[in-house]
Order: sequence, then C-alpha cells, then structure tokens
Amino acid sequence: MTKNLYELSEIIDKKFANGEDIPQNIIESIKNITNNKNYIGMAQINPIAGNIEYNAKKIAKYIKYSIQIGLDLVIFPELALMGYPIEDTIDRHPIIVEENIKWLKGLAKITKGTTALVGFIEPRKKDSEGKKYYNSIAILKDGKIDGIVRKSLLPNYSEFNDYRYIEPSPVVGVQPADTLGHFDKNSIRMQSKIYEKYGISICEDCWNNKEFFDKNLYEKDPIEELAQDNPEIFINCSASPSRAKKEQLKHNMLSFISNKYKTPIVYVNQVGAIDNSSFDGSSRVFNAKGELIARAKSFEEQFLIVNPKENIGKIYPLTKGLDKSLTEQKIFTLEYESDLERTYKTIIQGIRDYFKKCGFKRAVLGLSGGLDSTVCAVLLADAIGKENVFGVSMPSHITSRESMSDAEQLAKNLGINFTEATIRPMIDTTTECLNNLFKTIETHWDGRYKTSFTPDNIQARSRAMFLWGISNEFSSCIPIATSDKSELYMGYATINGDMSGGFAPIADVPKTKLFAFARWLNKNREEKNAIPEAIILKKPGAELAIDPKTGKPLIAEDALMPYEFLDEIIWRIENKNEDYQTLLKTEFIYEKHNPVSIEQKTEWLDKFFRRMSTALYKWSILPPSVIVESRSINKYDYKQPITSSKINYKGFDDKEIESTLTTN
Amino acid sequence: MTKNLYELSEIIDKKFANGEDIPQNIIESIKNITNNKNYIGMAQINPIAGNIEYNAKKIAKYIKYSIQIGLDLVIFPELALMGYPIEDTIDRHPIIVEENIKWLKGLAKITKGTTALVGFIEPRKKDSEGKKYYNSIAILKDGKIDGIVRKSLLPNYSEFNDYRYIEPSPVVGVQPADTLGHFDKNSIRMQSKIYEKYGISICEDCWNNKEFFDKNLYEKDPIEELAQDNPEIFINCSASPSRAKKEQLKHNMLSFISNKYKTPIVYVNQVGAIDNSSFDGSSRVFNAKGELIARAKSFEEQFLIVNPKENIGKIYPLTKGLDKSLTEQKIFTLEYESDLERTYKTIIQGIRDYFKKCGFKRAVLGLSGGLDSTVCAVLLADAIGKENVFGVSMPSHITSRESMSDAEQLAKNLGINFTEATIRPMIDTTTECLNNLFKTIETHWDGRYKTSFTPDNIQARSRAMFLWGISNEFSSCIPIATSDKSELYMGYATINGDMSGGFAPIADVPKTKLFAFARWLNKNREEKNAIPEAIILKKPGAELAIDPKTGKPLIAEDALMPYEFLDEIIWRIENKNEDYQTLLKTEFIYEKHNPVSIEQKTEWLDKFFRRMSTALYKWSILPPSVIVESRSINKYDYKQPITSSKINYKGFDDKEIESTLTTN
Repeated sequence: MTKNLYELSEIIDKKFANGEDIPQNIIESIKNITNNKNYIGMAQINPIAGNIEYNAKKIAKYIKYSIQIGLDLVIFPELALMGYPIEDTIDRHPIIVEENIKWLKGLAKITKGTTALVGFIEPRKKDSEGKKYYNSIAILKDGKIDGIVRKSLLPNYSEFNDYRYIEPSPVVGVQPADTLGHFDKNSIRMQSKIYEKYGISICEDCWNNKEFFDKNLYEKDPIEELAQDNPEIFINCSASPSRAKKEQLKHNMLSFISNKYKTPIVYVNQVGAIDNSSFDGSSRVFNAKGELIARAKSFEEQFLIVNPKENIGKIYPLTKGLDKSLTEQKIFTLEYESDLERTYKTIIQGIRDYFKKCGFKRAVLGLSGGLDSTVCAVLLADAIGKENVFGVSMPSHITSRESMSDAEQLAKNLGINFTEATIRPMIDTTTECLNNLFKTIETHWDGRYKTSFTPDNIQARSRAMFLWGISNEFSSCIPIATSDKSELYMGYATINGDMSGGFAPIADVPKTKLFAFARWLNKNREEKNAIPEAIILKKPGAELAIDPKTGKPLIAEDALMPYEFLDEIIWRIENKNEDYQTLLKTEFIYEKHNPVSIEQKTEWLDKFFRRMSTALYKWSILPPSVIVESRSINKYDYKQPITSSKINYKGFDDKEIESTLTTN
Repeated sequence: MTKNLYELSEIIDKKFANGEDIPQNIIESIKNITNNKNYIGMAQINPIAGNIEYNAKKIAKYIKYSIQIGLDLVIFPELALMGYPIEDTIDRHPIIVEENIKWLKGLAKITKGTTALVGFIEPRKKDSEGKKYYNSIAILKDGKIDGIVRKSLLPNYSEFNDYRYIEPSPVVGVQPADTLGHFDKNSIRMQSKIYEKYGISICEDCWNNKEFFDKNLYEKDPIEELAQDNPEIFINCSASPSRAKKEQLKHNMLSFISNKYKTPIVYVNQVGAIDNSSFDGSSRVFNAKGELIARAKSFEEQFLIVNPKENIGKIYPLTKGLDKSLTEQKIFTLEYESDLERTYKTIIQGIRDYFKKCGFKRAVLGLSGGLDSTVCAVLLADAIGKENVFGVSMPSHITSRESMSDAEQLAKNLGINFTEATIRPMIDTTTECLNNLFKTIETHWDGRYKTSFTPDNIQARSRAMFLWGISNEFSSCIPIATSDKSELYMGYATINGDMSGGFAPIADVPKTKLFAFARWLNKNREEKNAIPEAIILKKPGAELAIDPKTGKPLIAEDALMPYEFLDEIIWRIENKNEDYQTLLKTEFIYEKHNPVSIEQKTEWLDKFFRRMSTALYKWSILPPSVIVESRSINKYDYKQPITSSKINYKGFDDKEIESTLTTN
C-alpha cells in the first residue's frame, strides 16, 4: 500500500530527530505529491537561545529538505535563528547579533526554488532613534535575502519583554531587502507577486483584533492592514508559550481572523522550553472559513507539510482541554481535569530542555513520601529517564516509617535509583553547635524566640546539604527543589532547604491540582499506578515538627489553612483579581461544602495576605521553574518589590483618610 | 544673629526626621522670608513602595508646612504616593491603585493657598486601548485636583520597566482635572495662568534632548514641546537611581536644557532605596543661564526651599566625582577614587532602607578575615548600627590563625558583636555522612569526580547553616551574603553558602574597587583605620582548600586570574561592550605593567567567558542587592536566559559558515 504524505513525513521527522540520513526514495515519494503545487512546510523547531550555529544548522537542514521536495515555501518560527526569548543577551553580547546576520546570509545562499521565512534579530542603524533592534523575518529566495518583515506590536506583559530592546515597526508588510539594518519609515511596501500572495506577520501582530478582544493593548491592527492587500494566505511566525487556557484562546482567535477576512492563516509556533517558558508548538492552519485544517504535534519538533488553498493538512491531536468555547472558559472553575495533560507536557518539556540546553543529564531529589517530591520524581523519570534520577530518602527522628516505605515503593515502581540516608547525625551535630552559638549570642542580643523554626529548618537544610553534595561530586547532576505553588505563596518552604535546587518543576502547580495530577499520572502513564495510593491519601505535612496537640507530625493545613481554601484564594486573586474585601464577601466554592464562620474566614484571609507579603523574598531566590498557570509567581513573570511587604490589602474608607490627613 | 532661610529650614528638617513638633517661631521666621514671593518647596521624600498611607501622611506633612510658610508651590517626586518602582504590584493588587486615588483626593482637600504637585498612578478607563495606567502628576490646588500631567516617555532599560504597565501620554503639559482616569487624546492643553508659568514633566520626559544626546531613545522631546509655551520655569518630577557616572550626566543635561531654553529648571528627585535601586535625591535647580543655584542633600530626605527666578537657593555638597566634564568621563578609566563616596552612600542607603522597609533590625555575617566580609561588616555597622551587627568567625581546619585574629580585631575596631564558632564538627559529620552516601551512589552512577569541590562547599554551607540558624532563632535578624561582583561573574561563590543571605551588599562592587574602597573607608569614616592593614594587604582566597603546590590555602587569583585583569574584562564588557576578539586584540591597562603572553591572555579570556556562561544560574538566585555600577548582573537589571550558556563568544568567519551550511 502506498504511504500518504503524512505517513511519509513522519518517517522523515524520525530520521531527522535521530540524526539519520534521509532515504532518497521517501524524498521522491513526497516530491511526487507536493512538487509545484503550492505546498508549504511548517518547520516547528526547538532552538537554543543565542546558539546561532546550532539553530542555523537546524534551519539549513529543513531548507534543504524543502528544496528537495519542491515546496513553494518553508516557514520558521519568530526569531528562529536566535531563539525566543533572548532578552538582554543581544545587548550585552552583540557578537550573537552579528553572528545571526552572518548565518542568515549563509542560509540565503543555500535557498533555491523554495522561499524560506526565517526569524532573526535585525540590528538598526546606530544613529537611528529608538531601540537598537527589530524583531524581523527574512524572506530568503534564490540565493539572497529578498525582503524583510518587521514586528509591529511588542508584548511587554507576563514573561514578554519585547519593548525592552525591540523597536516597533511603523509599517506592516514586506520591506525591500536593501533596508536591512537601516529601514526608512518612508519606504513603501514591496509590491511583487510573492508579497501580494502572503500577508506575513509576527506573533503579537495578530493578537489585536478589535472585534475579537474586549480590551485591546494596541491601537494598530497589523492583520487588518495586511488584509487591505487581499493576500491569498496569512502567515504568522510565532513564539507563544503554553499557559493555562491559552490553547483555546489561540484557536478561537486564529479561527476568527481567517473567517473574518475569508483568508487562510498559517501559524508556525516555536516548540521547546527556554528557561521558564515552555513553548507548545501546535502550529496550525485554518482555511478561509475559519476551519482548522492542520495542526502540528504539541511539545515536539515537527515538519508539517500543508496546502492551505487545497484544504490539505493533518490535524494531530492536541493536549486535552480544547473542549470549551471561549465564553464558557471565562466561567470561574477550579476544575483541573481538562488541563492535566497540558500541565504534564509543559513541565516535562520544561525539565527536559533545561537539562539538555544547560548540559545536565541527571537529577537527585529527596523523597519524603509526600506528594510534592513524589510528583517531581515521576516527572523527572519521564523527562530525563529513570536511570538518571536518584531519589534519596533522608529520615529524621520525626519521619514516620510509612513515609520511608512509601518513598521506597514509589522509587521501585518508577525504576529510579534509590537509597536511604539518615540525617540524624547532621541534626545532632548542627543542633549542638547552634545551641552553643545561641547561648553566646543571647549574651549580646535579646529577642530570642521561645519557639522557633530552627529545628525544622535544620532538617530541611541538612537534606539540601546532602543533595548539593551529590551534585558537587557526580558530573552533570543537579538537585531538585520540590516546593509547590500553594506553599510558595505562603512562604512555607525552607531557604537553602526544600526550596533550594537547580530547578523547581512544580513551583507553578498548586497543591490541590497536584492531587488531581497524581491520580492523572497513575491513570495515564504507561506504567499505571506508579504513585502508591497511600501517598495520595495522606494529609500533606513537612514532617519537620511534632504537633504538641496530637503528638504526631504537624499537618500543613493546621499550620496554614485547608488547601482547598488556600488554592481558591490563589485562583481568585490570579484569575479574577479579587481583593481582600471582595474575597471576604464572596462565597467560596469551598464554603458550599464546608461552612466557614466569618471569623475563621477573616483569620485565613489575614494569614494569606500576611504570609504572601513576607514570601516575596523567597520568590526572588526561587530556582528556574516552569510557568504553567495563567499567572505565576515566577520572578520573570511577576515583579513586585520585596520592600512593598507593608501594603495594606484591606484599604481605608474615605472618612478614615480624611481624619488621618487633617489631624497632625 | 538672625538665622538665614537654610539654617532655619535645617532645624525643621531635623524636627520632621525625629517626628517632633515644629516650633511656631521658626515657621514664622521662614514665612517672613518666603511669603508671597514665588518661593518653591522641593520635597525630596523617601516613600515605601505600595504603602499609600505612609506616603500620603508624609506628603500631607509637607503640604501643611508649605501652606504655613506661604509657598507658591510644593513639588514631590514622580509617583510619590505609590513609590517608584512599583512594578506588577499595581496590576496584581489593584487595591493600592484605588487607595492612591482616594488618598490623593484627601490630599487635595487639605491643599489651600500653596499648589502641590503629587505623583500618582492614574488608572485609565477600562475599555481604553493600551496599558491600564498613566504615570501622572496631580496639581492639587485650593481643595481640589486642578490639573493632571502625564508621563510621555517610558524607560524600559536597565532596572526601568515603565512600559510594562504604563501607557505613554500622547500630549505633554497640563490636562484638565475632569480627564482623571479617562483622558481623551483630543483634549487640548489647559490654558491658565499657572500652567503657562510652569512647564511640568516627569523624569524620562527630560532625557531626550536631540542636541545633548548622541543617540535618542524616543522620537518626541516633551521639553522641546513645553518650551513652545515659554514657561517661566521647567519642573521635572523624578525617580532616578544612583549609578556610576550618572550624577555628572544628569548635571550636564539639566544645565544644558535650562541654558538652551533660557528657562530655569527645578528637578525634584526621589530619595531612598526600593529593593535593588538606591535613589540619591540630590534634587537641583538650574537658573536660566544653566547655572546650578540649588541642590538638596544626597541620600537624605530634605525639604529645600528655593526661588529660581530670584536665584535664591543653597547648593549642598554632592558626593564626590562631579569634577570631570561629560566628554572626559567617556574616556576609559578604571580609576575608582572619584566614585567611592557615592558607592558608600548608595550601599549604605540600600542596606538601611531594605532593613527598615522590610522590618528587619539586625544582621549576622561570617567574618573570615577576608576583604569581602570585612567591607560588608563596615557597611552594616554604618547602615544599621554596630550594636545590630553580629560577626561570627567560623574557622575550619584550613582557616589560618591570622584570619581569625584579623576578624576579631576588625570586630573590635568596629564595635560590633563578635564570637567564634568552629565548624569542624559540622565538617566531620557532613563529610562522613556524604562519604557513605557517595559510596552507595557510586554503585548506581558513574561520573564521580576524582577531585571535587564537595569539601570546599561543605565548609561554606556549614557556615551558612549557622547564620541562617541565628536568623531563625533571633527576631528581626537576617544573614548577609558577602559575594563580590568579580567572584559572582566567575561563579566563584557557593550556592547555599557565601552567596546565600537575606541581602547582598557588595554584589555590584568588583574586587579591585573593594581594595580602594577599604582604604577609603579607613581614611574617611569617623573612626579611622577600622580595617586592619593585614586584611587589605593579604591576597584574597576563600580558605576552603589547600593548594597542593604550596601547602597553604589556595589563592583566588590562582584559581581564576589576576583580579586586575578580571575586573578590566568586566569593565570593558560592561562599559565598552567589547567582545572576545576585541578584548584579545586590545592592550589592557593591566598589560602595560604586566606583560601577558597571547597564550596566557587567551586562557584567561576563555576561562572568563566559560565561567560567566555557567554563572547565569547563580545570578538568578542571588539575594536582593544594591545596584552600584553603570551595569550590573542583578537579575532585575540584566536578563539573560540561563539556557543560553552555550553561546559561542568567539564567532565564526564567513567561510566557516558557508562550509558548515553547504555540507550536510
């Protein structure tokens, strides 16, 4: 039986991924289908930030292949040569900008027959007003750079920082190649066949439709302007990371645009993680009716061949969650189920690429038998291979027998390396040393706490001492910080202890989602039920202190508040911007099933705002992590001065203000 | 003898600072001088970010005082009600924006006779395009908000992030008060007496003069536009932090502007530190000839009364360094002397305000007898009081007797608290535990280093364990990270060790500058020669390992490279943007006195770029610190993806690129 286009190109994808030679007979078979028929290649690639040689070689590979199979056009993501985001690197190390121009010109030379759209950083004339660079797409054609498209709309929210170093392009559409580096605002748009055919834009340029969005960030709508030329196809080169609820939004928006202008849109997205941002790929094509006709895989490199005008494409399955309309999505929900597959893939890619791109191979983590370290272990095993993960159970005098056996069982189920190493001698020595030291200090200073967190923290820090020791002693190995989002919000994490590590995989996942996630992992991974049920069922607690009331290890919820309530506050402030007074007045979902007195609710809310304020410092030293939710506390995503910890979150009424200001 | 205006107002400043009542007779004396004569008050205040009540009370105090002494106008810095920078806080916690409007209206009510210019965050209409806020100045007059000025130019470089949340104002000058929150672009400028008299702008608005700067960041020049109305006086409300070389630049620029337009300029700057940025105040007035006629104190709150049109003012001494013209400044120099006083004051204020605004009182730090911890101890003693500083000497088996006695002598000279606590039991226990653990791990994993940094790091981490223990046990106390800039560039700092702490005072000071700084401190502090000469003379070394060649503790320069060479690389890449090849070709100042072979230079440069690349992670978890130099590695000032560590800093030539791309 003859293989179809997508069966054939999947073979090629695999060969490319393994660095193997591409069989000539398959090339020929594909060519017979695509040649001279307006086929387009969507090169969904995973670049390394600033590694121009690596990125250029990858781009060259796909350009050559596109030429071999006779494509009309091959499209790469935004800033494909540089990697997105690149941030201040281009300003501090201008060598990479020079290199990206040199390699771009090299790529132009190998382009023949097929036109290639390649994203790059374009340095501007030194004496021109404004920022030093454009974020541009080069049109490579028949051995030369044939035209340039420059980004007009520059996002500067969340993890985006474009306007910090990029000058917005005052015009849309293709500019002549001879404007490279010294674009003149008075240049007119190029009028040639190819540039009437394709309406090319870059990422944010297509995110400002005035009908689709309630609130517009920019005045200008580049797509509306491009539409005036009646292009046959819209093209958008993107680097758009995965975040909760974004897939659906993107789908709806692209569908809306193609339908509105009765013009197909080809959207090519970057894949792979760069530090905290995990890009999902999922490149798409919508036809002139706004119908999805092609979609590349999510979280994988892929070369997808499509023909938008002939409605030829393949729709690869997306991560789950794309089953609600945009309107429905806006309804408040703490339901996690539809987002768990995306969460999994986002984090797995985040871990894998951080390790690969930094040159690490192995991870070591403490296995406490609790939910956080358990989920981290599963994710690591899947991301970097079970043989590269070492779980260490590090019991103290407080650690229960169950915790230790749960940890061991988990390691066994996962097939990761495991050992047990008591921290008791560390605790004994440290406690003795510190007690002597404290006695001396007390003779100079007052203010010694009657009860302190010192004993708790000695345990957490002794464990980190072990893990960092292993990282120092064994090559290519980093320790993992296992803190979750709920506990980080509360500052319920030990500095130089459990919040310390080379990477923090679940720093953007709240605790209640982790419970759902654990069940999802047990159900959806190839090896079912790797997480022992006991781990999911037990009440979370750091096992660092004994509750004097029960004589048993302290439960985290007793120190904080019910996780369901805590996570609902986080959800409400992050997604609905609710303030203290609104939170107090609004009935929580939690309250529907668990009556809460107003005194109790006030106490929990006060505790939340107080602890969150003093957790700002901890957030500032949090290791690199994966941004997962629509809003995170990642320092590259959310910036708040630490010294703003004295904010009054309750506010004043006008009378209080007047009396304060009029009296002395 | 009758006291003059400035003697009188210094008495008032002191009373305000101590929260004491203002004597009526002094008020009267000042009033006799200033009343009804176009005097202006420059309220150089130190706000707390987001603490509206605190800031508003401070503003109210000065408004009332201005009314009492019959000033025409009182001017506050940019965003005085909110504190600058406020960052994402306004978006995450809209309550503080609501509060800043409520308190602003309250302040308007108490304003009578004297007009007040108060900086605030102005929320925009919900459905308007663009960002959610303006950065505005309210003109408070006779019980109401009488007009609004909005910032046009939004800096988005270094530590500035305005464009992230602020919409640029399309017009300059005063807008009617009824546009509050819903400014219409078609509004015309207000034409009334006061607004013809004063040409009001906000910070960056005056940083775009086309003649003064070689390169302009923006197209528009708001001052040029304001000048069209021939105002009697320019006013600029600022929040401009202290950085190397910036004082002189600011002086020259303001002088240039006032002289060019033959119009006096009153520049009111914020003072105090907010997290990493230390604002210097030094508010100034230049007359219509571009001559400095008044300057407030640096790094102190002050209420300076001036009369620009009558040339009445007082020039308080600036920190040293304002003795070169702008042209001379641009000449490359590694001469530190002229910047040491500013460096001192910037860091002292940075420490003091971080402690005060976060609610900390005391600091604990390890005293190694080395330069870094020594300078930190001096700075802390001066910033928060010697009684609030605890120095702990924590010798290991490697620590020399001299280091211990030097540390003790330093503490004695400074009068800070001091004790000695051996870390030997910690090292013994940790080493034993880790050796057992490593044996087990070796049975699973290969890649154990033959020689590792594990023993070095155990020492550094044991010390941090002590310091964080003290912080946990005693109230209002944080440990200090003592890493310097040169060593941070090289990643020559231990995670959870010496680079860990609640604050890092000298993270932006290179080692060779620290030597000059130590001598400066010995000469310029009230207590002379607090730093023992032996500490300044000894070669820096972490005393964590024995050099097998000498049998003595390893010298840092042997592990790295000569500090003079290292710091010159840092200076060159930060100030001159020199790349690898340029550095290789250029003769260093260091080379003039120390011949360096090309092999040696290559080795050092390679080491620098390699180590810097892998230090990116460490920079990302660096504690809050004070930005001091013109460029820093502070993560809020400089952003580079950690995964960009594989950048090729040497670049390729065109032939290499061509051959790489054409072969498969």
